[in-house]
Amino acid sequence: MVSKEHPRYASLALRDKLVSGYDQGIASAHGLIAHGRGEAFDYLLGEQTSENARNAAKVACAHLLTARFPVFSVNGNTATLVPDEIAELQTFIDMPIEINLFHPSRQRMEKIAEHLRAHGVTNVLTGSDFVELPNIASDRAKVDKNGIFKADVVFVPLEDGDRAQVLTTLGKIVLTVDLNPLSRTAVTSTVTIVDEVTRALKNLVSFAKDFESGYHRDELNLLKAAFDNLENLKTSYAIVLERLRSLVR
Amino acid sequence: MVSKEHPRYASLALRDKLVSGYDQGIASAHGLIAHGRGEAFDYLLGEQTSENARNAAKVACAHLLTARFPVFSVNGNTATLVPDEIAELQTFIDMPIEINLFHPSRQRMEKIAEHLRAHGVTNVLTGSDFVELPNIASDRAKVDKNGIFKADVVFVPLEDGDRAQVLTTLGKIVLTVDLNPLSRTAVTSTVTIVDEVTRALKNLVSFAKDFESGYHRDELNLLKAAFDNLENLKTSYAIVLERLRSLVR
Repeated sequence: MVSKEHPRYASLALRDKLVSGYDQGIASAHGLIAHGRGEAFDYLLGEQTSENARNAAKVACAHLLTARFPVFSVNGNTATLVPDEIAELQTFIDMPIEINLFHPSRQRMEKIAEHLRAHGVTNVLTGSDFVELPNIASDRAKVDKNGIFKADVVFVPLEDGDRAQVLTTLGKIVLTVDLNPLSRTAVTSTVTIVDEVTRALKNLVSFAKDFESGYHRDELNLLKAAFDNLENLKTSYAIVLERLRSLVR
Repeated sequence: MVSKEHPRYASLALRDKLVSGYDQGIASAHGLIAHGRGEAFDYLLGEQTSENARNAAKVACAHLLTARFPVFSVNGNTATLVPDEIAELQTFIDMPIEINLFHPSRQRMEKIAEHLRAHGVTNVLTGSDFVELPNIASDRAKVDKNGIFKADVVFVPLEDGDRAQVLTTLGKIVLTVDLNPLSRTAVTSTVTIVDEVTRALKNLVSFAKDFESGYHRDELNLLKAAFDNLENLKTSYAIVLERLRSLVR
């Protein structure tokens, strides 16, 4: 075990959590590599939530609260890292949780569903009744007829670029969490929270809690309208540049 | 399988190779995550070898060729990704290959040794006769008495920062491959090749081949003396900054 005094304790603890998710058959080997990529970008962001990312989480929350039919798309890494936060978010926002895997197997799908339910997640969809989205080379093209397919707002943290693109082309509002502000997913989505997924989910839950104590629908619509994702990405990107400069000072 | 037309085909093929190494019990789960971190930095470097990294590989080659007793330290990722290149390098430079793991097990050690030998690698040390280096918290402290311990030049691609530091403190010349020009390993080593490990190894082999056709020992010593690792790292780092800027143009 890593000591809590270690300057990168939070990051190393997350890494151990993910390896344990892999050992349980929830995360995939490719998911571990993808997590590593994220770690490097988080390191460049200083491993903390920027004001900018906090605001993006607030706007994403506004989208979820005002949606006609929101859906939360979950992969192996998200299920491993934030099952409690997903369950908590569901207490504020009524939405199905659709499991959607890049490297799918019936067995892993069931393991993930079981894991989520054990953490209090309800309304879990496993794509048993699916349709296939166009222009996606992987199995992630398969989406649930009663989930992503009919959603107006899709929250897809740790998404693949090609699917994010197709989902927006289909007219859906796409909310994502991506540590690389220059990725195709980041650039294509409606709202990109450039943050580590556990920090992003905690913020989403906290905003959902705040809003619950009373808000006007116009207030949320104003938040949505005032948001510019390109500006948001540019700011995140500026943080990376500034941090890179400071690291060699 | 990923299509060869994919703009990031080489990177994705490497990723698949590593997952297959993991499935064979050669790479570790933590190794997969570490690979992902490297992927992110390679992406920032444009996934190609810079002139700067090519020069560092040349200088590293000069160190290996002029060493009294060079040793090549191999971990699970290196064994998975470049077994053929290690074997080829041994045809030009007579040196033992010491397997040294952060997450060791006798079984994995044997699997890696077997894998390397199957690819033509000879003189493989598995640390059966070891001494422990000071100030290293992990099992990587254990080094072979007939390997790293008595080496004057150690080639340790994908190394841990604390061990790189200890090895230099012990007066050894440390050559490494690290995609993060700001890492402790990168900063501590004598020569840091800021490049992806398969590209770096192919370059090393190619320089060893060039030098074999005839060189003067003074020429190699001059190469070594002219090299400034800090300048090398600054240049690599400038490439990352420039690339980040160009990505949003």
